[in-house]
Order: sequence, then structure tokens, then C-alpha cells
Amino acid sequence: MATHFKNTDLAQMDRRYRANLINSISGAKSANLIGTISEVGTSNVALFSSVFHLGADPALVGMLSRPNTVPRHTLENIRATGVYSINHVHSGMIQTAHLSSARSDGDKFKLTGLGEEFVDGFKAPFVRESFVKIGLSLEQVIDIELNGTHLIIGRVEHILIPNNCLLMDGDIDFSVLDSVAVTGLYTYHQLQQLEKLPYTKSDRGKERT
Amino acid sequence: MATHFKNTDLAQMDRRYRANLINSISGAKSANLIGTISEVGTSNVALFSSVFHLGADPALVGMLSRPNTVPRHTLENIRATGVYSINHVHSGMIQTAHLSSARSDGDKFKLTGLGEEFVDGFKAPFVRESFVKIGLSLEQVIDIELNGTHLIIGRVEHILIPNNCLLMDGDIDFSVLDSVAVTGLYTYHQLQQLEKLPYTKSDRGKERT
Repeated sequence: MATHFKNTDLAQMDRRYRANLINSISGAKSANLIGTISEVGTSNVALFSSVFHLGADPALVGMLSRPNTVPRHTLENIRATGVYSINHVHSGMIQTAHLSSARSDGDKFKLTGLGEEFVDGFKAPFVRESFVKIGLSLEQVIDIELNGTHLIIGRVEHILIPNNCLLMDGDIDFSVLDSVAVTGLYTYHQLQQLEKLPYTKSDRGKERT
Repeated sequence: MATHFKNTDLAQMDRRYRANLINSISGAKSANLIGTISEVGTSNVALFSSVFHLGADPALVGMLSRPNTVPRHTLENIRATGVYSINHVHSGMIQTAHLSSARSDGDKFKLTGLGEEFVDGFKAPFVRESFVKIGLSLEQVIDIELNGTHLIIGRVEHILIPNNCLLMDGDIDFSVLDSVAVTGLYTYHQLQQLEKLPYTKSDRGKERT
């Protein structure tokens, strides 16, 4: 048996029920900690489940910042300094990473106990505990007027990744890496690899970007 | 040991290696089939790994359409009819769903063998095999000039979901639902639930949207 919700049901729904339902229906999301630093040098780290692939050439990553939620310092810092880091959450750091979703004006690295790390003169802090760390420079912020969210687009400047999860073809072996996925409002999952299928080449011979 | 790629390395990288690497580094993605119909009534179904949560109130879902890849008919159809469906891929339909990523001008439902289904007078086709089916109306297409991609924003009009995976609080139990995640260019994973942590209430008492 299936339930059928219509737009009129959604409009009348309890706010919390709707938040859980709508946050769940889009499926699996990535779990990443965003590292930033303010103009006066206060570090910040915040959990985002909205990081997504935007393009490989140039290497662009997208991320959504919501209007009334935790990551507000993140966007302010990114606008101020032009840089930020994306750090994968693995299964051993879920509890700690989750703490960073609490709103606070203090130093989130201190609050959570996560370690901050600076690499190669890059101004934004990375998260020491993460296995994959990406340094980005801000390319564009697109304001989405429909709901007041902001799409943050960054260009990849640095990628730090363990050798043992990096495959010959540039693909990442997530069964070795152990980065987790999120569904809804912070239900965490491990990825169990089922199949790796070949990219279906188009009949016009174009490469996927 | 870790590998450190810099932006200069990325620029010189083999195109396919870079595509694999950059498509992987953002982490877990959702696997969804997008159902559309053209103005003259030809159905289309295409695999997307770029569907993401955009907001719960109003209920908005985002999705990225790339310039030179398969889903071009998808965007054309959405622009023409103003509606589309998002259908979760589960572990039993990976091979079939993957076939829809081949570029073709024919009817992708016929090509793949996926079943098309119409519900409640909604003009776009749903995928019969999927357990979760979402009907959306187009709200906005944002052109991202940095790389020629298009952000398609839809408003949720219908949600069809099996009762046995719908929890009391509106959350979806993915261990029952069995929707899969994607990393890189089509490596498919099952979600193994680790923890469900409570939403960390902000100190300003605002609800997450």
C-alpha cells in the first residue's frame, strides 16, 4: 500500500512532519564539514548535507546555504575571504560532526573538538579527522529568490585524498574511504557498493563533464 | 599516505581521469529517474544523479542539467510542459535505470523496458518500478554561466510512497525503502543505516526548513 500526498496535503501538514518528509524524498545526500575563517581570523566548521557536483572542467562544486539555519557564519566567512574547505565525514566522526550543526557564535572547532589544519598557505582551515579534504575558491553566489537560499559555487584549488582509495582511473573507492551519506535531517548511512557500471557513451561521442 | 592535487594538476590532467575524480569528490549522490513528456506526447526517462533538497516550505527540489550530456530532452520537455517526475532507483532496478543514461532520440521507456505510469491526471509519466515517485511543477530554470549547466527548480505537487517506509514523524526509513546512492560516474551503493541523530535545535529557536 502506498500513501499519496498532494500539494494541498503538504500545505496543511505539521511543519516538522513536512520538514522530515521533504528533506527525505530527494534521496541520498553527501555529509561534509565546511571549514571557513572570518576576516579577523575566527575559524568555523559546519555540517552541510547540500554539497553537490557541478562540473569537472572547470572543477566546480555547488553547495546550498539556507536562510534561517546554522550555516550563516559559513556564507559570511566565504564572502569575506573568498575561500573554504569541504571535508568528508566518515563513520568514525558522525557524532562529532553532528555537534557542529548546533548554532553557536563561538569557535566550532573548540566546541566540537574537531581538529583544524592549514595546508599549503590556503587561508581556510581543513578538518584534520577527515580523509578527503577539498580547498575551494568562491566563484559565485546565486541567490534563489523562491525561498531565500543561496547557491555557493566554488572552484577546486586543492584535493587531499588517501592513496589507498584513489583508483587508477581517478575514481574514488568509497568502500575503502568510508565516507557516509545522509538522508532526511541527519540519518547517517554507510555506503555498501553494489555495482560499478560503465559510463554509457553517447551516440554523438561527447564526453561527460 | 595522501595525494595532494593542486589546481595546476587538475588543469593538466587527462580528461577522463579528471571527470572521474571530480565527479567523486563531492561524495554520495541520489539516483533518480526523471520522467517527462514532450509537447507531442513522446515520453522520456533519464537517469540523474544531481537531484537535491532545496527547501521544505515551499517544498522545492533542485536538479542540475548539464550542457553536453544525456538529459537534454529532459530539460526541453520540462520547459515545454512545465511538469516532470522524480522516481527513486532501488537496488533491483540499477541495470535498467542505467540504460536510460544512453543518449537516444527514441522512447526511453521502450528502450529500457521501464514501465510508464500516469497518476491523477498529472501530465508527466512516473516510473512504475520505483517505490517513491514525486510529481513536480517547474518553478524556475537558473542558467549557470560558469559552465553552461542549468539548475531546474521544481515544486512538489505529488508524493507517492509505500506506507511501510514512512515513519510517524514524516521521515523515510531508507533501510526498508532500499533506494540506492551513486558516487562518481555510476558506482551504485546500498545505504546501511548507522545512526539517526536528533536535529540540533538552534539557540535562536528557529526551525529548519
